[in-house]
Formats: sequence, C-alpha cells, structure tokens
Amino acid sequence: MKKAVVLYSGGLDSTTCMAIAREQGFEPYALSFNYGQRHTVELEKAREYAPLIGAAKHMVVDVDMRQMGGSALTADIEVPKGGVVEDEIPVTYVPARNTIFLAFALGWAEVLGAADIFIGVNALDYSGYPDCRPEFIQAFEKMANLATKAGVEGQPYAIHAPLIDLTKAQIIEKGLALGVDYRLTHSCYDPTPAGLSCGQCDSCRLRLKGFADAGSADPVAYV
Amino acid sequence: MKKAVVLYSGGLDSTTCMAIAREQGFEPYALSFNYGQRHTVELEKAREYAPLIGAAKHMVVDVDMRQMGGSALTADIEVPKGGVVEDEIPVTYVPARNTIFLAFALGWAEVLGAADIFIGVNALDYSGYPDCRPEFIQAFEKMANLATKAGVEGQPYAIHAPLIDLTKAQIIEKGLALGVDYRLTHSCYDPTPAGLSCGQCDSCRLRLKGFADAGSADPVAYV
Repeated sequence: MKKAVVLYSGGLDSTTCMAIAREQGFEPYALSFNYGQRHTVELEKAREYAPLIGAAKHMVVDVDMRQMGGSALTADIEVPKGGVVEDEIPVTYVPARNTIFLAFALGWAEVLGAADIFIGVNALDYSGYPDCRPEFIQAFEKMANLATKAGVEGQPYAIHAPLIDLTKAQIIEKGLALGVDYRLTHSCYDPTPAGLSCGQCDSCRLRLKGFADAGSADPVAYV
Repeated sequence: MKKAVVLYSGGLDSTTCMAIAREQGFEPYALSFNYGQRHTVELEKAREYAPLIGAAKHMVVDVDMRQMGGSALTADIEVPKGGVVEDEIPVTYVPARNTIFLAFALGWAEVLGAADIFIGVNALDYSGYPDCRPEFIQAFEKMANLATKAGVEGQPYAIHAPLIDLTKAQIIEKGLALGVDYRLTHSCYDPTPAGLSCGQCDSCRLRLKGFADAGSADPVAYV
C-alpha cells in the first residue's frame, strides 16, 4: 500500500477524508496539530480515535499559534453562536492555518517517501475560509513540487481534497457508506469541559444540518 | 512606516535581509523558529541581536520538527564537514522548512496587517536546497494570495527575496554598506558549547569564502 499523509483534526470531515484515502488504497499517516486551539478536547478525541479509524501512525505536532493571535479559535475572541452562518469570513478564521498544516504535511510526506496528501476541506457547506477553496489547493500543489527535493527530482506530490465539491450531507452519506462511525468524530468549536457539543457554533450547526439533510441522526452528545 | 515580517535566523543572510527591509522603508517584525535545530546557539544569538539590529518586535515560534526527522539539522544524522560543498541536495536539507517558515510569516503578516514578507534565501552560494530558488518564491507568493483573507480581499502579499541573485560576497558587501555589524550574526551548523563556529560545516565554509571574496575579515570567532 502507498503511504499518504492525511490531515486529521478528529472532526467529521477529516475522518471521512481518511476513510476515502483508505478506500483509494492508501495507508493513512494521520497528522494533527496542537496549535493552541481552545477546543483541546478535539485533540484528545483525535488521539483516541486515530488507531480506531485505521491510521498506520498518528503524529501530533506542537505549533504555537496563540502568540500570533488573530482568531477566535486561538485568541480571546468570543466564538459566535446563533443566527445564520455569516457570508463574510468569520472570526473563527485562523490566518494561514491550512497553509501551515499543509506545509507540515509536505515535510512529513517527504520524510516518509509519500507522494500523496489528503485534506478534508470543502468549499460548499463551510465557513467561508479562503484556504478551503480549490484554487488554493491547486496553488499549494504547484508550490509543493517546487519546494521539495522529491518534487524537484521528479516525484510530484498530489494534494487530494476529495470533499471539496460535496455538501455536508453528501460527506456524511459517503462516510456512512464507507462504514465511518461518526461517534468517533468531534466538531464543536466550544464544547463543555465534559466534551459535550454546544450545538450552536458554526461547526455544530453545519454538522447538525448535514445530518438532518442526510436523513440520519448525529450520534454525538449535545448539551 | 509599513510593517514587514522578516524571517530571521540570526544568521548572516537574514540579518542582511532585515537591513535591506529597513533601507526600503519597512518596519521589520522579526520571526524566528525554535524547530528542534541542533544549533540552538543560533536562536540565543537571534534573541540577543534582534533589538540591536532594529527589529520592531521579535517573535520566536516553537514548532516541533524533530518528530518529523529527515535532516542532519533536526535528527541524529552527522553534519558533513570538509571537502567541497556537494552538488546534490545535502543531509542538512530540512524537508519543507522554508514552506513552513513562510506559512507562519504569512499568518503573522495577516494578523499584523502587513503585506510584505522578507526571506533571505539566495540561489547562488547556497547548499542546493530546492526551497531557496526563485520559482519556489514565486509559487509561494501566488499561493499566499489565494490562501488568505487579505489576499482574497485585494491586499496582495509580496514575498521579497532581495538576496536571491547575490553571491555571498555581494551579500556581505551590501550589508557592510548598510552598516550591518556581522559580529551580531551566527552561521555555524555545529558550534562548540561556548558558541565558537566550527569553520568546517557547509555554512561556515560558505561564510568564510564570502568574506574572503569580499576582501573583508569575518569578525566572528572560530575554533
């Protein structure tokens, strides 16, 4: 089996993405980040679930993004709740986050001798982050092949974003068809200390709407 | 003055790069990384020198690249010494390092409201790293403008690599003309515990040759 680095947050999208990588015949190397996110329960869940969902290895990289600030997910800015998901780029946007995450994935892929990187971004039911769009993914792939020894020596990298054109409901349907147990995922930006999801942040609302549209019940616990 | 993020290792190139940013009218925000490099003296020197060479602020980001491995600078691979600087990409190459560093610079620039990022790579007297070439810098810039809120909203980023076409001797001549005190720089990959440079690693040899070609004496101490 060919190795692939899969960016893995422990959430619904990245877990489905890992199931798709396995379906395509790759051996997934899961990569998570401890980047000063408020919702560290996400990371605890990721550590617990990674082996259960088939990761060959799980690496958690410490990167300090709190010093940089600028986001409700890493600084003391309130996570927005209620109302509609905003059209404009929200305060939960973390500057350059996917660029930073993909850069690490690229480094690890080069060390592992892997030519494939999976990222579970999607450009439909998302929060309007610029680094979730297909043109960003394509530009990163082009850059990656100029940045690396393997790329320069003719072993080009492919950045796979298999969820990019799917709605949240379609992602869930795909995952259920592949046998993903969505109890082993976590999406909430602002869970309780006990790990219950708030049901009100953008991430919870997109998730709940996705399950409703897919005609399925979300198996995680809400407050 | 316009703010600019300047990647700053404490070395000869990045220090000269910061002097050039200042000459061009920018207020430099210096960014360093504690990435598990063997030569942590470099980082201690960077902290000491950053205010002396005119950085408005100096941020040191902890990023754990040791877990990833794959380089003599971050893993237990011997740093090569003696002989000619190799034509092929050497073991001191750190996979995706400049991609990772520029990704953080991009995030910080976005938070600061800066549109300019300086990196002191050069493509002539260097060690053959793929992420020091102009085509990599251009591809990163293009990607950066698709990755970020500011880029998407029409405030494009510029990645400046003012040393890219210069020889080491030309870099030193430029720095001396701008008043850089090269005692306040450190280049060695494998210094003694007391901070003396080895004089034998690729970085020392390129530096010493540069000073010789520039007809100037290197003011740092060697073993």
